[in-house]
Amino acid sequence: MHLVFVGRVIGNLLQPELEELIRERKFNELREILCEFPVMDLAEIFTDISPGDEAVLLRILPHKVAADVFDHLGLDDQEKMLHALGNEEVALILNDLPPDDRTALLEEMPAAATQKLLNLLSAEERKIAVDLLGYPKDSIGRRMTPEYVAIQKNWTVQDVLAHLRKVGREREMLNQMYVVDEHGHLVAMARLRDVVVSDPSTPVASMLIEEVFSLHATDDQEAAVTAFKKYDQTMLPVLNSQHILVGVVTVDDVLDVAEKETTEDIQKMGGMEALDAPYLKIGLFSMIKKRAGWLAVLFVGEMLTATAMGYFESELEKALVLSLFVPLIISSGGNSGSQATSLVIRAMAVRDVRLRDWWKVMRREVMAGFSLGCVLALIGLMRILLWPNREKVYGQHYVLVAITVASSLIGVVMFGSLAGAMLPFLLKRLGFDPAVSSAPFVATLVDVTGLIIYFSIAYQILHGTLL
Amino acid sequence: MHLVFVGRVIGNLLQPELEELIRERKFNELREILCEFPVMDLAEIFTDISPGDEAVLLRILPHKVAADVFDHLGLDDQEKMLHALGNEEVALILNDLPPDDRTALLEEMPAAATQKLLNLLSAEERKIAVDLLGYPKDSIGRRMTPEYVAIQKNWTVQDVLAHLRKVGREREMLNQMYVVDEHGHLVAMARLRDVVVSDPSTPVASMLIEEVFSLHATDDQEAAVTAFKKYDQTMLPVLNSQHILVGVVTVDDVLDVAEKETTEDIQKMGGMEALDAPYLKIGLFSMIKKRAGWLAVLFVGEMLTATAMGYFESELEKALVLSLFVPLIISSGGNSGSQATSLVIRAMAVRDVRLRDWWKVMRREVMAGFSLGCVLALIGLMRILLWPNREKVYGQHYVLVAITVASSLIGVVMFGSLAGAMLPFLLKRLGFDPAVSSAPFVATLVDVTGLIIYFSIAYQILHGTLL
Repeated sequence: MHLVFVGRVIGNLLQPELEELIRERKFNELREILCEFPVMDLAEIFTDISPGDEAVLLRILPHKVAADVFDHLGLDDQEKMLHALGNEEVALILNDLPPDDRTALLEEMPAAATQKLLNLLSAEERKIAVDLLGYPKDSIGRRMTPEYVAIQKNWTVQDVLAHLRKVGREREMLNQMYVVDEHGHLVAMARLRDVVVSDPSTPVASMLIEEVFSLHATDDQEAAVTAFKKYDQTMLPVLNSQHILVGVVTVDDVLDVAEKETTEDIQKMGGMEALDAPYLKIGLFSMIKKRAGWLAVLFVGEMLTATAMGYFESELEKALVLSLFVPLIISSGGNSGSQATSLVIRAMAVRDVRLRDWWKVMRREVMAGFSLGCVLALIGLMRILLWPNREKVYGQHYVLVAITVASSLIGVVMFGSLAGAMLPFLLKRLGFDPAVSSAPFVATLVDVTGLIIYFSIAYQILHGTLL
Repeated sequence: MHLVFVGRVIGNLLQPELEELIRERKFNELREILCEFPVMDLAEIFTDISPGDEAVLLRILPHKVAADVFDHLGLDDQEKMLHALGNEEVALILNDLPPDDRTALLEEMPAAATQKLLNLLSAEERKIAVDLLGYPKDSIGRRMTPEYVAIQKNWTVQDVLAHLRKVGREREMLNQMYVVDEHGHLVAMARLRDVVVSDPSTPVASMLIEEVFSLHATDDQEAAVTAFKKYDQTMLPVLNSQHILVGVVTVDDVLDVAEKETTEDIQKMGGMEALDAPYLKIGLFSMIKKRAGWLAVLFVGEMLTATAMGYFESELEKALVLSLFVPLIISSGGNSGSQATSLVIRAMAVRDVRLRDWWKVMRREVMAGFSLGCVLALIGLMRILLWPNREKVYGQHYVLVAITVASSLIGVVMFGSLAGAMLPFLLKRLGFDPAVSSAPFVATLVDVTGLIIYFSIAYQILHGTLL
C-alpha cells in the first residue's frame, strides 16, 4: 500500500514521462501507470497536461474511472475536454456524471453547446438535467441532486439496510434518508449513523427526526452556505415552492460557493466589480471593463480634491510649505479608513457584527481613531521638530507648522476611521452590498474631507503668522 | 411535525417570554417550551440571553440535551457559561463534549482555568484532553478527535455492522473506518457507504481502499483545509510522526479554520495585523495595537512624499497649479494598485495563480494598467480643457498642464497596477504572506513614485513655459 500526501507535485513530476509515452503511443504502459493512481491524483495530472493529451489519457482509462476523473476536473478543463472527445465518449461520461456536477458544467457552456450536450443524454438523465437547469441561476436548485434515499415510516433497520443494498449504489449521499407523505411533503429524516448502530429489528420510527432543517430550491446559494455553517450538517434536503422534497444539497458543493462569495467580496473591497472568473482565465478586455468603471467613478470623486486645493490656492501661495504635507495627511486618513472598513465588512460577512451594532462600532472607532491619530501626530511632530535644517526647509514658523500637521493628523485619522467603519452600515441599511465600501472608495471620501480639515486647521493656527 | 427554516429570529422572538418565565421561576413550563426546539435553535436562543439566564436554562434541560446545546454554543458563550455553572455541572458537560470541540474550548482559556477544568475530567477523558493539547497551537492535532472506528481486514460486512452496533454510538464520524496493522500504522480504509450497500456476507477486503489520503498531526491546519477541498472528503485520518493513526479530522471543524484564515487575509489586506478575535470581542487596546503598527510604518513610508515634494519645491513655487493635481494623481495610482493587489492576493489564496505565473500576470497588468490609465487620462484631459474659466484657474498654459496631468495619469496608473500585482509575488517568493501587500501598502509605494513620475513629466513638458 502507499499513502498519498497532500501536495501538487505529482502532475509536474510525471508530466514529461507521460507526454513521452503518449508520443510513442505506448498505451498499455500508460494505462498501467495511470491505474496505480487514485482518482484525485489523476485529476491533478490531467490539469497539468495539454487538452489533446488529456483526451488521449481519458480514452485509455477504464470507462468508470474516466467518468470519475472527469468529475473531479475543474470546469474549464471539463469544457476543453468535451471539445477534444468524440460524441460517443462525451455521451458515456455525461450520462454518468452526478446531476449536480453536470448542472454546474452545463450552465457554464454557451446555450447552443448546452443543447447539443443535452441531446446526448438518455431520456431519463435529460429530464433530470432539464429540470435542474430550470431553476434560477445562483439558486440552490442549480446545485442540487435529486438522488436521495427515501424510506418508509413503518420500516425496521433491517428494511432500511435491505433498501440501501438495492438503491444505495446510485445515490450520491446516504448520510440522511427521508420520509415523505403521499403528497411528497418531507415528514421526517433518519441519519445513517443512527441506523447502522441500531439493532436490525429496531423500528425506524424510534430514530426519526421530525425537525428537519431544509432549504428552498429557489433560494440563493448563500442561504445554503449559512445553513451548513449553522446546522453542522453534511447534506440538507431541498423543497420546492409547494414544499415538496425535490432533492438534496451536499456540503462540498457549498464549499465552492462560499469560496466564490469571499472572492467577490475581496474584489469589491479592492475597488472594482467582481470578476466572476479566475484572474488568468477572464478575457483582458472584460477585466479592464470591470476595473475601469469604479476607477473612473473614484477618479471623478477625487477631482473634488483639485477643486478643494484650488479653493485654498491663496493659502498655498502664502505658505507653500503646507503643500509638502498634503499627500502625507490625506494618505493617513485613507489608510486608517481602509483598516476600519476592512474590519467592519468582514465582521459583517461572518456575522460578528450586525446592523444593530452600529452604535457600538461607532464608539469603538472614535476611540481607536483618536488613539491612532495621536500616535501618528507624535511621529509627525518629531519628524518636523527634529529634522536637520528644519528652519530652512519648513521656515521660521516650523513649530506652528508642526502643530498644524499633528492636529490635522488626529482629525483626519479620526474621520477616516469613522467614515470607513460607518460606510458599510450605511450601504447595508440602504440595501447595497457593504463590500462596495472599498479601501479606495473610503480613501477618496477621506481625501477630499482631509484637505478641508487640514486647511481649516492651518488657517486657525497659522492665521497672523504664515497666513 | 414542524420544519425549521434558516434565520436568526427564534432567539429574538422568544427572548422576552423566556426571561419572564425565568423571573417567575416557572421552570416546568420553561422545560416544556425548550424541549420543543431542536438543539441548533436552542443554541441560538442561548446566544441571545444573558449568561446568568443561560445557566438557568441549561440546568433545566435534560442532561444529554444540555451537553449537546453547550457543544453548539460559540467559544465565548461557552466560557461565560462555565463561570456561571457549578463544578458538578461543568464536569458533566465537559466529560460529554466531543474531544475536538473540548480542545478548542480549553485552548481559549487562561492556563490556570484550563488546569482547573482538566481536573474535573474523568481519568480517561483527561488523558485524551491532555494528549490533544500536547500538539502545537494551530496544528491539525488540536482539531482532531481520537474517536474513529477501527475494523479488521478479514471481517465481512456483517462483522462491521455488528461492530458498529457495539461501538458506533460513541464515535463522532462513521463515514470512514480504518484498518491498522500491529504497529498501529494505517493500512487501508473502508467507506460506510460501501459497507451498507453490500450484501452482509461480502468480505470487507473487497471494498478496502488502500490509497488513503491522510494528514499529519503536527501540520498546520491550513494543510487540512487544502486537503478537504482537494479530496472531497468529509473526514480524513491523522497520523503522528511515526505514521501511527492517532485520530480523525472532520470537515465541519475545518470550515471554521478556512473562514478564520480568510478573515486574517482580509484584515492584512486592509493594512493591519490580523486581530485573532471577533471585532466586537477584542479589547480596544489590543485592537489599537494591531492597527497602530502598520499605520505607523505606512506613515513613515509616506513621509518620503514630504521629502519628494520638498525636492520639487522650486517647481511648485514656479507653477503652483501643479500642486492642485497632486492628490488626484497619486490617489489614481493607489486605486489601480489596490485593484491589482486584491486580485492577485485572492487568486493566489484560491490557487488560481501560482508563483510561476508571475510573467503572465505582469504582461496582463502592463496592458490593463495602460488601458485604465488612458481612460483616466481622457477624463482628466476633458476636465481641464472643458472647465469654465480654465485660463483663470489653470493659467494661460492650461493645455500643457492638461497634457502633463494626462501623461502622468497613464504612467502612474501603469506603475500602480504593476506594483500592486508584483508585490504579492515578491513577498511570497521571499517567504512572507502575500496578503501583507495591502491596499494601503501599495498606495504608499505608489504615492512616492507617483510624485516623482508626475514632476519628472511636468519638467519635460513645461520646461521653458511654466518651469
